[in-house]
Amino acid sequence: MKLSKKNLHERLEHVYDVIIVGGGAGGLSAALYLQRYRLSCLVIEKGRGRSFWMQDLRNYLGLPPNTPGRDLLQQGQNHILSLGADYLLGFVEDVQDEGDTFAVKVKVGKKDSTYPVFHSKYVIAASGIIDHLPQLDDMQNVYDYAGYNLHVCMICDGYEIADTRCGLFVNTEGNINTAFVLNWFTPYITVFTQGLFEVGEEMRHKLRDHGYPLVEQPIRRFLGHNHEMTGVELVDGSVVPLETGLVAMGSHYFNEYLKGLDLEWSGSNLVTDSMCRTSHPRLFALGDLKVGLNQVSIAVADGTLAGTAIWREIRRASPPRRWEENLSEPIGAVS
Amino acid sequence: MKLSKKNLHERLEHVYDVIIVGGGAGGLSAALYLQRYRLSCLVIEKGRGRSFWMQDLRNYLGLPPNTPGRDLLQQGQNHILSLGADYLLGFVEDVQDEGDTFAVKVKVGKKDSTYPVFHSKYVIAASGIIDHLPQLDDMQNVYDYAGYNLHVCMICDGYEIADTRCGLFVNTEGNINTAFVLNWFTPYITVFTQGLFEVGEEMRHKLRDHGYPLVEQPIRRFLGHNHEMTGVELVDGSVVPLETGLVAMGSHYFNEYLKGLDLEWSGSNLVTDSMCRTSHPRLFALGDLKVGLNQVSIAVADGTLAGTAIWREIRRASPPRRWEENLSEPIGAVS
Repeated sequence: MKLSKKNLHERLEHVYDVIIVGGGAGGLSAALYLQRYRLSCLVIEKGRGRSFWMQDLRNYLGLPPNTPGRDLLQQGQNHILSLGADYLLGFVEDVQDEGDTFAVKVKVGKKDSTYPVFHSKYVIAASGIIDHLPQLDDMQNVYDYAGYNLHVCMICDGYEIADTRCGLFVNTEGNINTAFVLNWFTPYITVFTQGLFEVGEEMRHKLRDHGYPLVEQPIRRFLGHNHEMTGVELVDGSVVPLETGLVAMGSHYFNEYLKGLDLEWSGSNLVTDSMCRTSHPRLFALGDLKVGLNQVSIAVADGTLAGTAIWREIRRASPPRRWEENLSEPIGAVS
Repeated sequence: MKLSKKNLHERLEHVYDVIIVGGGAGGLSAALYLQRYRLSCLVIEKGRGRSFWMQDLRNYLGLPPNTPGRDLLQQGQNHILSLGADYLLGFVEDVQDEGDTFAVKVKVGKKDSTYPVFHSKYVIAASGIIDHLPQLDDMQNVYDYAGYNLHVCMICDGYEIADTRCGLFVNTEGNINTAFVLNWFTPYITVFTQGLFEVGEEMRHKLRDHGYPLVEQPIRRFLGHNHEMTGVELVDGSVVPLETGLVAMGSHYFNEYLKGLDLEWSGSNLVTDSMCRTSHPRLFALGDLKVGLNQVSIAVADGTLAGTAIWREIRRASPPRRWEENLSEPIGAVS
């Protein structure tokens, strides 16, 4: 059921089999599997994750290529609620290992917040990432185009960028190297540093060699209408016409709540085994938070893997059910 | 485009980037990614695979839980055709490694068959499995219930079996062990050997200990109506009432066309790395054919992984595209 400030006290004594931090594609898929394995789980979603912002999910088998990410999330949320999962809008602040269980502290409500603590045998970290975006005075101007033709994922949307005049927006010299992958899709690349850092001579030479203009002036605003970005206006008033954009400015990882646990990391990503188990035996990590491709299909499969691994472990530790309860003797021919 | 006897000659000189053997969830997902990476691929589907028979796909995030497997396949087929993939109904008889390319021999048409040979740089084996079913004189009687409440996958459908009187249909003593996993979902299990093999004393004892009746008489037919199986009639005319069934008789692997290649196998499954690459560097395997869970979500993610690995390899071997073709000088403020 949906939990809120009004009813969450009903669950404070309950020990869930699994608490899932994050209600994106990975977390919802894990809940779907766990509930179908007849285990109890609570999904805690902070809202507005990466797939929420996705205007068109074009590469997930089974959905028409113009499906908004939020439709996938809504369908998944309905699905897991129909299977008896609990779902709470809240922000996970901390996870403590209590030995046999975890204590998961959540901030619920932006005003008059409460801080309930829920308990579970396992935790699945599926809280994902959010892409850094160009920081303009008017962020609404950025949101008007981000997720439309101002893309944030080349693997997802390179196809839409193909052979267009594309602006590549970066915040480090290392991120400029994205240009030399993006050119598989288009050679008409203009690199925007937004004046955030100095570009070394070697990189300048490489860009010149490829014919990719480098724009180092800060951006005043994106131009366009109806969510279709048509170019960039720089602070000096000059305009660079574009047909598409790709933001390659890194990501914020929602993993602060895990920092009290002793886990193996690879940069900001959690290291996991083939079933998405982290170096902690009762903690799993899915999707963008773990090492691997940041794709909806991968997160969904990760949910399958983690859910199945947890079910196997709980099942093997449980006594077998014998045919002796409720039902009478079997009818018919038996040995 | 859809290929057929009439137009396939147009593609006999073409070297595809990838030929995908199997148009199930894995193969379609791979084609979706490859075409979006602007690579060319041909999907060869023999028809009527495991997901085609799935009456309700209940555990794939984003689709309502009563979605027939064939709807997923149809949506995926439309999707990849819209992206320019080629699609052919045919049966792959043989794959030969020619060094830089593979030669893929296909039987097209059940009558007046033709045997075209297509070529590609990479091959993705996504031809899957099909479950062995009880062999009755009237197989239509089996098909009336298989994929409805006569299930073939416990991970998929254990939830629907929960607390029901379930018939477990096996063909080896080893498969009887499925009962001791199935009892997570229900203890009301009757095991049917169909008289196909002898059951040892130890297993008989274990079944008695759990209270699971063992029926060794051959089956005459499944009883029921409107695709809802209600029990089994044995050859002596006696009836065992059931509410659900699970067939655990192993699977046929569609991998004969690979037998001429030197590949690493684990039983009937292909061994692959984390990107679904087999021991042959230009051959990938997806979904049920490889080691791992037989789930739609896994196959779809496998398609993502294999498609991405192949794209990376082809991209890295290609010369970079410079901004010098077609378009004039960039407009606006540039360095």
